[in-house]
Amino acid sequence: MNSSHSLKDRLFVMVFGTSTAAGRRFDILILWLILGSILVVMLESVQVIHDQYDLELEIIEWVFTIFFSIEYVLRLLVSPKPHKYASSFFGVVDLLATLPSYIALIFTGGTYLVVIRAIRLLRVFRILKLTRQVSEAQVLVKAMQASRYKVLVFLGGVLTLAVIMGTFMYMLEGGENGFTSIPRSIYWAIVTITTVGYGDIAPQTVIGQTFAAVLMLLGYAILAVPTGIVTAEIAAEGTKQQERKNNEKYKTCRKCDSHDNELNADFCKTCGTKFLV
Amino acid sequence: MNSSHSLKDRLFVMVFGTSTAAGRRFDILILWLILGSILVVMLESVQVIHDQYDLELEIIEWVFTIFFSIEYVLRLLVSPKPHKYASSFFGVVDLLATLPSYIALIFTGGTYLVVIRAIRLLRVFRILKLTRQVSEAQVLVKAMQASRYKVLVFLGGVLTLAVIMGTFMYMLEGGENGFTSIPRSIYWAIVTITTVGYGDIAPQTVIGQTFAAVLMLLGYAILAVPTGIVTAEIAAEGTKQQERKNNEKYKTCRKCDSHDNELNADFCKTCGTKFLV
Amino acid sequence: MNSSHSLKDRLFVMVFGTSTAAGRRFDILILWLILGSILVVMLESVQVIHDQYDLELEIIEWVFTIFFSIEYVLRLLVSPKPHKYASSFFGVVDLLATLPSYIALIFTGGTYLVVIRAIRLLRVFRILKLTRQVSEAQVLVKAMQASRYKVLVFLGGVLTLAVIMGTFMYMLEGGENGFTSIPRSIYWAIVTITTVGYGDIAPQTVIGQTFAAVLMLLGYAILAVPTGIVTAEIAAEGTKQQERKNNEKYKTCRKCDSHDNELNADFCKTCGTKFLV
Amino acid sequence: MNSSHSLKDRLFVMVFGTSTAAGRRFDILILWLILGSILVVMLESVQVIHDQYDLELEIIEWVFTIFFSIEYVLRLLVSPKPHKYASSFFGVVDLLATLPSYIALIFTGGTYLVVIRAIRLLRVFRILKLTRQVSEAQVLVKAMQASRYKVLVFLGGVLTLAVIMGTFMYMLEGGENGFTSIPRSIYWAIVTITTVGYGDIAPQTVIGQTFAAVLMLLGYAILAVPTGIVTAEIAAEGTKQQERKNNEKYKTCRKCDSHDNELNADFCKTCGTKFLV
Repeated sequence: MNSSHSLKDRLFVMVFGTSTAAGRRFDILILWLILGSILVVMLESVQVIHDQYDLELEIIEWVFTIFFSIEYVLRLLVSPKPHKYASSFFGVVDLLATLPSYIALIFTGGTYLVVIRAIRLLRVFRILKLTRQVSEAQVLVKAMQASRYKVLVFLGGVLTLAVIMGTFMYMLEGGENGFTSIPRSIYWAIVTITTVGYGDIAPQTVIGQTFAAVLMLLGYAILAVPTGIVTAEIAAEGTKQQERKNNEKYKTCRKCDSHDNELNADFCKTCGTKFLV
Repeated sequence: MNSSHSLKDRLFVMVFGTSTAAGRRFDILILWLILGSILVVMLESVQVIHDQYDLELEIIEWVFTIFFSIEYVLRLLVSPKPHKYASSFFGVVDLLATLPSYIALIFTGGTYLVVIRAIRLLRVFRILKLTRQVSEAQVLVKAMQASRYKVLVFLGGVLTLAVIMGTFMYMLEGGENGFTSIPRSIYWAIVTITTVGYGDIAPQTVIGQTFAAVLMLLGYAILAVPTGIVTAEIAAEGTKQQERKNNEKYKTCRKCDSHDNELNADFCKTCGTKFLV
Repeated sequence: MNSSHSLKDRLFVMVFGTSTAAGRRFDILILWLILGSILVVMLESVQVIHDQYDLELEIIEWVFTIFFSIEYVLRLLVSPKPHKYASSFFGVVDLLATLPSYIALIFTGGTYLVVIRAIRLLRVFRILKLTRQVSEAQVLVKAMQASRYKVLVFLGGVLTLAVIMGTFMYMLEGGENGFTSIPRSIYWAIVTITTVGYGDIAPQTVIGQTFAAVLMLLGYAILAVPTGIVTAEIAAEGTKQQERKNNEKYKTCRKCDSHDNELNADFCKTCGTKFLV
Repeated sequence: MNSSHSLKDRLFVMVFGTSTAAGRRFDILILWLILGSILVVMLESVQVIHDQYDLELEIIEWVFTIFFSIEYVLRLLVSPKPHKYASSFFGVVDLLATLPSYIALIFTGGTYLVVIRAIRLLRVFRILKLTRQVSEAQVLVKAMQASRYKVLVFLGGVLTLAVIMGTFMYMLEGGENGFTSIPRSIYWAIVTITTVGYGDIAPQTVIGQTFAAVLMLLGYAILAVPTGIVTAEIAAEGTKQQERKNNEKYKTCRKCDSHDNELNADFCKTCGTKFLV
C-alpha cells in the first residue's frame, strides 16, 4: 500500500513536475507528440496527401488521440486534487486536446480542432522556466503587462481612425474598386494602417489615392507609438532589475538602521558607527 | 422654482459630468448608442442587407437620430452658458452628429455622414480619465505633443523624398506598368516607403526594380526615425514621472527652506538645523 | 555709388539672409514658387490634363523658369563672392533648377528634370532654423549622423542576406512564378525583408513558401535592429542635451576653480571658500 | 632555406593578416573578386544575357574558379597548421566557394552554388575591425547576442500564434480563396503578422476578413516587442560603454587601493591619505 502511494507520488512528480530528469523527459516527450499530431492534421489538409494517405494519417491521429486520452486520465489519477486540476486552465486545454478525434466521429470538420493542442505547447515555458530564459521571459511578460493598458487605449484609437477613414474611402471611391461596403472599407483601412497592404482592395481614383497616402503617412507616424510604449517598458524593466542588483551593493548599519551605506564604507554615513565586517 | 433649478443642476451633472454614477452611466449609454448607430450605417452599406432590411434599418436610424437630437437640445437647455457649449468642439460635433439623417432627406448619400458620430466616441477618454488609464493616456499624449514638431519635420522630409523618387520612377518606367503620371508615381513611392506595398503599381523594368530596392532599403532605415523619436519621448516622459515620485523622497528644512534634504538626513545640509521628525 | 552699394547690401540680406522680415518673406515666396512649379510638372504628366491644357501649362512653366533664372542671376550679382556661391551645393542646385525648360527645348523629356527643384525645398530648414524646430532638427540630424556607420554596416548585412536568400529562392522555385532570374529573386528578397510585399512575385511551391516564411520571421527580428540603433542614439542625444542644461546648475569656485558646486551650496566643496552670491 | 621560410611568413601575413598594407590590399582584392563572381552568376541567370553571352560568362566564371582554387591551395600552404585552417569555419567556406564550377561539370544547376561565395564577404568585417566601425559593430553584435534568447522565445510565440490562426482561417474560409491547406494558411498567417502582405492569398468572406483584421492589429501590437527588446539592449550596451569611460574618471588610492575616488578629490575617501597629483 505504501509502495503504491509512493508510485503515485513518483508519477505525480514525473507528470506534473519539471524539476526532475524524469519530469523534464516526460514533458519533452509530450511536446514532441503535440508537434507530431499538429503536423498530421496539417498534412491531412493538403489535398494530394489526403487522397493518398488518408487511412494512414487517420490511424496515426487515433494513436495520438489514445495516447493523449491516457495521459489525461493519468493526470487525473495522480493529481492529489483531481477536481482542481480538471478545472484549471491547462486541465481544460488538456481535455479539449483529446476531444477533436472523438468529435470528428460525429461531425465532419472536427478534426481541425486538433489545433487546440498547439495551446498545450505553452507548457514549453514551464520547462524553460528552469533554464536561463527565466529572467528574459519575466522581463518580457512584465513589460507586456505594464504596457497592456497603454496598448489597449492605443488600439482603441486605431480602430476609431479605421472606422472614420474606411467610411470616407467608401464615399470617395463610390462603392467601386473593391470598396463595396463600409465594413470592407474598414477592413481596407486596417490593412493599410498596419502596413500589411494586401492590394486586393486598392483605391483607383485620384482623390482616393491622395486620401490613402495621407492615411499611410499617418499610420507611419502612429506605428511608432506601440513600439515606443513597449520599448520604454522593457528598458524600464531592465533598469529595475539592474537597480535590484545594485541594492545588494548597500549595507545596513546595525545601530541606526540606515540602508544606504556603500559596501566599501568603513563608518556609517549617518551615525559614525564603525562597520565590523 | 428652487426645485426646478435643482433639477437643472442635477441634469447638468448627469449630462456633462463624469464624476457621479449617474453621469458615468449616461455617458456609457451614449457611447453604446453611438456604436449602435455606426453599426447600422455599416450594415446599410452592405448590398445584401440593404436590399432585405432597408426599412428596418432606416427606422432604427431615425430612432437614433431622434434620440441624439433630444440629447443635443437637453445639453443646450441644462448648460449654464448654452452659447459657449454650442460653439465648443464637442458642441459642434454633437450638432453634426444629429444632422446626417435630416440631410439625407434632401441629398442621397448624406447617410454616410453618420460616421461623424465616431468622433463623439472620443468622449470615452473623459470617462477613462477617472479610471486607471489616466497616467497612461497622459504619458502618451505628452509624448506625442513633445514629438509633434520632430514628427512633422520628419514627414516633410519623407514627402520631399517621395516627390523626387516618384518623378524619377515615372521617368524610368516610361509611363508604363501603372506609373501613368507623376502623382500616381508619388502615390507608389509613399506606398513603398511606408512598407504598405499594395502591388497594384510595381516596377517591371530592371532599372526600375533596382531603384525601387534602393528606395525600400532607404525607407527601411528611415522607418527607424519616427519610432526612435516617439520612444525617446515616452521613455523621457516615464523618467520624469519617476523623478516626480522621487522628489517626494526629499524633505524641506523648516528654517532655511532648502528642498534637497534626503529623507534619512538628521541635519539640514545647508544651515545645520536638526530635523525634528 | 555709395547708395548703389548699400542697395546691393540690402539685396544680399534679403536674398541670402533669413534673419530679417524681408529675407524670410523672400525665402517663403521662393518656396511657394517651387511648390507651384512642381505642381505644374505633376499636372503636365497626367494625360487628361496634358491633352487639354498643354499650352497653358507650358506658359506657366516658362514664367516659373524665367523667374528662377532672374533669381539665379540676382544671387550671382549680389553675392560678394559669386564664384564661391556658384560652386556651392545650393548654387549648383539653383542653376540646375533653371535649366530643365531650356533643356526641354532640345531634348523631349527634359521637362521632368524640374523635379530637381524639389531639392531646393531643403532651404525650408534654413528658415525653420530660426524658429522653434531648431533643437528638434539638431537632435534628429545628430542622431542620424551618430548612427550612420551602424546603419551602413546593418544595410550591408541585409544586402548580403538578400543576395544569398534570393539565389536560393531562384533555385527552389526553378525560375518560375516570377523568379525568372537571380536579380529578380534578390529584388523579391528585398521586397520581403523590408516587409513591403508587393506580391507581384510570390513563391508558389511548398518549399518556396516555407523558405519565404523563414525569411519573413528573420526580417521581422532584423527589422528591430535599425530602429534600436536610431532610438538609442536619439535617447542618448536627448540625455546629452539634458545634461548640458544640468551643467548650468553647477557653479565654479573663484578660488580653486572646481566646477561641481551645486547652485544652492554656500561653501566650495573642495577648498571651503564661502560663495558671495 | 631561411629566405624561403621568411617568404612563407610574409605570404602568411599577407593572406591571413589584415594589419599590414599588403594584407589589407589582398583581402580587398578577394572581396572584389567575390563580388565579381557573384555578379557573373547573377547575369548568367538572366535568360537574355545567358542566350547571348553564354560562352563569355562561362570563361569568366572559370577564371574566377581557378583563381579561388589557387587562393585556397595558397592558404593551405602558407598556414602553419593547414589541418586547423581546413577544418575552421572560413576554411570550409573557402573550399565550398571553389567547388560549384567543378560540380557543374557533373550536375547541371551546380553553378548557382556559387552564391555560397557571398558568405566569404563576411571577411569584410575582419577588415572593418581595424577601422572606425569597430565599436559600432561590437555594440550591435553584443546587443544581438544579449537579446538572442528573448528574440527566440518571441519567435516561438509568433510561430504558435501563426499555427493556431492559420488553422482557424482554413476552417473559416473553407479551403477556398487560396486557403487550400493548413500549411498554406499558416504561410498566410506569417505573411500577415510580419506585415509583408503579398496579397496572393487574402480572405474574401466577411468572417475571414474580420478575423484577419484582428490578427493584423494583434501583429501590430506584437511588432513592438522584438524592437523593444533589441532597442533596450542597444541602449543598455551604449550605457555600459559610457560607464566604462566614466570609470576612467576615478582614481585609485596608492595606500588603501580604494578605486572610487573622484578625479578632483584631494584626499582619499577611505583612509584620508592626501593625493599627490
